[in-house]
Amino acid sequence: MNIEEIENSKFLKSMTTEELSDLSQDIRSFIMHSVARTGGHFSSNLGIVELTVALHYVFDFPRDKIAFDVGHQSYVHKVLSGRAKELKNIRQYGGISGFQKRKESPYDCWEAGHSSTAISGSIGIATARDLNKEDYQVIAVVGDAAIMSGESFEALNYLGTCKHKVIVILNDNNMSITKNVGGLSNMLSEIRVSEKYKNARDNYVTFLKKSKTGERVYQVTKKMKDVVKDHILDESVFTKLGLDYLGPIDGHNMEDLISALNTAKDYDHSVIVHVETVKGKGYEKAEKDKIGLYHGVKPFDLNRGIVPALHTKHQSWSEAIANHVEFLMGKHQDICVITPAMITGSSLNHIFKHYPDRSFDVGIAEEHAMTFAAGLAISGKFPFLSIYSSFSQRAYDQLNHDIARMDLPCLIGIDRAGLVGEDGPTHHGVFDIGYMMPIPNLIIMAPHNQKEAELMMNTAYKNHDHPYIIRYSKNMIHKHKDHQQDVLNVGSWKIKFFDHAHLVSVITYGDQVKNVENLIREYDLPVNLINARFLKPMDEQMLDKVAHTKIIVFETDMLIGGLGEAISFYYSQHHTPVELHAMGIGDHYVTHGSVKELLKREGLTMDDLLIKIRECLNG
Amino acid sequence: MNIEEIENSKFLKSMTTEELSDLSQDIRSFIMHSVARTGGHFSSNLGIVELTVALHYVFDFPRDKIAFDVGHQSYVHKVLSGRAKELKNIRQYGGISGFQKRKESPYDCWEAGHSSTAISGSIGIATARDLNKEDYQVIAVVGDAAIMSGESFEALNYLGTCKHKVIVILNDNNMSITKNVGGLSNMLSEIRVSEKYKNARDNYVTFLKKSKTGERVYQVTKKMKDVVKDHILDESVFTKLGLDYLGPIDGHNMEDLISALNTAKDYDHSVIVHVETVKGKGYEKAEKDKIGLYHGVKPFDLNRGIVPALHTKHQSWSEAIANHVEFLMGKHQDICVITPAMITGSSLNHIFKHYPDRSFDVGIAEEHAMTFAAGLAISGKFPFLSIYSSFSQRAYDQLNHDIARMDLPCLIGIDRAGLVGEDGPTHHGVFDIGYMMPIPNLIIMAPHNQKEAELMMNTAYKNHDHPYIIRYSKNMIHKHKDHQQDVLNVGSWKIKFFDHAHLVSVITYGDQVKNVENLIREYDLPVNLINARFLKPMDEQMLDKVAHTKIIVFETDMLIGGLGEAISFYYSQHHTPVELHAMGIGDHYVTHGSVKELLKREGLTMDDLLIKIRECLNG
Repeated sequence: MNIEEIENSKFLKSMTTEELSDLSQDIRSFIMHSVARTGGHFSSNLGIVELTVALHYVFDFPRDKIAFDVGHQSYVHKVLSGRAKELKNIRQYGGISGFQKRKESPYDCWEAGHSSTAISGSIGIATARDLNKEDYQVIAVVGDAAIMSGESFEALNYLGTCKHKVIVILNDNNMSITKNVGGLSNMLSEIRVSEKYKNARDNYVTFLKKSKTGERVYQVTKKMKDVVKDHILDESVFTKLGLDYLGPIDGHNMEDLISALNTAKDYDHSVIVHVETVKGKGYEKAEKDKIGLYHGVKPFDLNRGIVPALHTKHQSWSEAIANHVEFLMGKHQDICVITPAMITGSSLNHIFKHYPDRSFDVGIAEEHAMTFAAGLAISGKFPFLSIYSSFSQRAYDQLNHDIARMDLPCLIGIDRAGLVGEDGPTHHGVFDIGYMMPIPNLIIMAPHNQKEAELMMNTAYKNHDHPYIIRYSKNMIHKHKDHQQDVLNVGSWKIKFFDHAHLVSVITYGDQVKNVENLIREYDLPVNLINARFLKPMDEQMLDKVAHTKIIVFETDMLIGGLGEAISFYYSQHHTPVELHAMGIGDHYVTHGSVKELLKREGLTMDDLLIKIRECLNG
Repeated sequence: MNIEEIENSKFLKSMTTEELSDLSQDIRSFIMHSVARTGGHFSSNLGIVELTVALHYVFDFPRDKIAFDVGHQSYVHKVLSGRAKELKNIRQYGGISGFQKRKESPYDCWEAGHSSTAISGSIGIATARDLNKEDYQVIAVVGDAAIMSGESFEALNYLGTCKHKVIVILNDNNMSITKNVGGLSNMLSEIRVSEKYKNARDNYVTFLKKSKTGERVYQVTKKMKDVVKDHILDESVFTKLGLDYLGPIDGHNMEDLISALNTAKDYDHSVIVHVETVKGKGYEKAEKDKIGLYHGVKPFDLNRGIVPALHTKHQSWSEAIANHVEFLMGKHQDICVITPAMITGSSLNHIFKHYPDRSFDVGIAEEHAMTFAAGLAISGKFPFLSIYSSFSQRAYDQLNHDIARMDLPCLIGIDRAGLVGEDGPTHHGVFDIGYMMPIPNLIIMAPHNQKEAELMMNTAYKNHDHPYIIRYSKNMIHKHKDHQQDVLNVGSWKIKFFDHAHLVSVITYGDQVKNVENLIREYDLPVNLINARFLKPMDEQMLDKVAHTKIIVFETDMLIGGLGEAISFYYSQHHTPVELHAMGIGDHYVTHGSVKELLKREGLTMDDLLIKIRECLNG
């Protein structure tokens, strides 16, 4: 059938199991080709096709409510709710979102982008339903990595005794973006390989029933269940939390899926349905992918597969940072590296390979990651914690209460800082400066190139006196081979252009330094340019030095709580009257789209800056 | 013996079990009298006496490392590490802290104040130990409520597969501050009442061994353990996570404690030791306390017990807020109340009693609490989430990513905002303004009295358009009987004193409005006074109205990220030159002590303000 013509999933109801399976293949093919063309989340959506089709067959959306955890695996759901045609513009400015989005469709009752919120949200929805005496099902679809995060556990623990029914679908593909970690992951693996256990159990029961004593043993066993529940039967951490458990179900077998979902639907209480799926199902290279190459993809050729680009002159910020961390680890035995499930994203593969004893992937567990770093730091280790800006929000309290309050020497790499583009509002790393500036003891750094980043990292290690933050974007930067050995003076800014006669100064940081430098050169603008490489502490001498000029602070992060605000406050507190123009993102969430497009919409392009500079020069 | 003379716990090593038990009684009595005199954490410390004595007997501190989760239950540890004499000044300015504190003693290797960080921290310490090829034990002591919080789970899950040994002592008194919630709590209860299960199990094994078939059943069962581990024997959620489990142990039986701790010490891998203790042990009123009256106490008479003061004219902010929430709940069926384990602290007892269906205690689970509120809000409910300012830090991401990004109508009560006094740096609620101001869509309100608070709450409910924050302190305020019915204009500030001729304006909010008002009256100061009751959005008209005067912004929260900074930024962006003096807490953590003492140290008393006003008037 023509997938693009699907308006909603009502037509599924009259289909046979076989037809549903066939439809799944069509949808899989459609999504495979579509995402290869547009980019987006690839493997997770191929893995969840049959499950989503079965969900739409068994349940009655949008009357029933479904929350996809994170939401990056909701493409099939989008297709089945009439958005197939729009898939070609997914994640582009003005196009549909790569996650569930409430304003997009009544089929999207929930939205996210960060992991592990779906169960909590679903409990809220289910509670409201029961208070309103309404009658519909609430379903949370959670991956096996996201279910191991703290908030998921808080929600499951709560669900174990709360009387409002939620069906939790554990979409278990035995990996998060890459592989999973932790005891719960092992337990799931045990369940997965437990066919022999299931057989053993069945044989055991049969065996017991064969003799009179056996029969009595069986009866006693059954009675014991009242005290210890199912100890001889299926057991899992979920039943320990008071939740019923169905599974494991083959997530690519339509009949099994429908049967399990119908059972779950009939329950009058909450239940976990454990569904085993294969990430990347149907595209061999993705099925075999163990490092997350096919997790989130840029457009690629399905025939060739993804061919990692060989950059000789350029590299990602993540690579540049990881490369120098690895260099430092070679020199200093006390440096340890921590990542919350982002080995590949943060380019830590080499480090994990070369220094396995000092490299720690803690899974999607940002809170634990940060406090674990604190534990290492008070024991004479120097942790480097690499964490995406928007996910670092999960560890705000641990950064404040554990790391900063105890003033522990360490280096925290805030990756994907600033606008990230297509992933949109949940992923833009634009809040870290605002939430970190008020926290005492933190040194906050934003390098503008590899060399500066290395000097900063050397500084953090050598000084060993405070927690240092180094923030960097998703952009590509020039690659240099040599490693810097020097250090910086904490709080020192760098002059790019300065002339006492200039009437205007631009202060900026990070990637924008180069952009502004180019702009000034291109138009031969008579303005000073200052690289505010330390956001905290600021270079007060430098601020005094340019106080006689008009000052433009140019940021592509939130205006409120940003550097411009901090600078205005400095001058204000020192009663230095300065004409200051702070440019940055206004007081709203920024949608998805290319970074270029978004900067245009926010009035933060180099053209916008040029206009502002000319206003200041002429005004 | 004279408890105050204890210098360290080495003398325990030569004592008999009986002598250790006797010593425990002496320490209990000492602490009981001491805390009744000074105030502090009472019940938790009485409950943990034998456990702490046994820990100091079996382990070799400070060579071995111990992290008390939260740390409020470390008084016995303080006594055994030579700080008994200082207990009389605990939590007072210059005295010892009510929590573990690294600078206080080498016996305190960790410190906290917020819950659920001890296991993560301990894993960090243990990892560093093994990397350094050192040989000591690392012990985390965690309460049964704190272990149900997300971060504890993340850490336990990680510990389940990490090879660095940590001994986790689960100090299970079957309540957090009040009673526990959740599936894990039920599981612990099951274990506690499982004496009959233990007997059943023993009988079962004996019974099996009585016959040949039984013997074979027993053998098969033993073999099955390879696949499903201990399913017929002791099992818990912990073993599911790959952790060994010892318990439950009677936490007041010295012999059992020593035996279990020695076993745990001999293990070459991580283990959970489940210890049952009685909160308030030895003081009957505290043992029977079900609402947390004896959790954190002010000085009281041991003979009389705590007699809750009957305030006729005054009330706590928590009471005032809860009272109006209850009033609104009576009028509006859609209002629901959520607390993360603070029913009593946030004065929600009446609400939970009168509206049990619409009141939700989710346990120490701030993340879940916030997203649960989001789920309710998108389903037509109007949630009121009451949360302490410093603990709200745990839910920063959920506030930003779930509540604010989806712009969900709700009301969040930020309790204990501002300096809280004796609990110190981990508990001062001074960061919430700074981290909330940059978050879009939030309306942030700070009432200065009950009437204003009620108007604000009415406004939030009536407008139903955004997430509203209402922040209030730990102080007592005047009580009024009538409930306000009106609403406020969002963003409107209130003039307390204004005269066009005045050359100075003071802008402040919350409790300080009354204090400054009194100051101005007392000294008949010719200054304007503005109540900045909305921190966001600000009243720009009002700011323009006073722009011709010198402006003093007086805050007792962090200066960075605060109202003063926001106001300076407003004037700066509007190119309005204003002489502004922002007063607030400098860029450092504030220690413990009475609020009065702390304000003095921070230069934020009314005398300090008076000096500043006079400077401005004369300057």
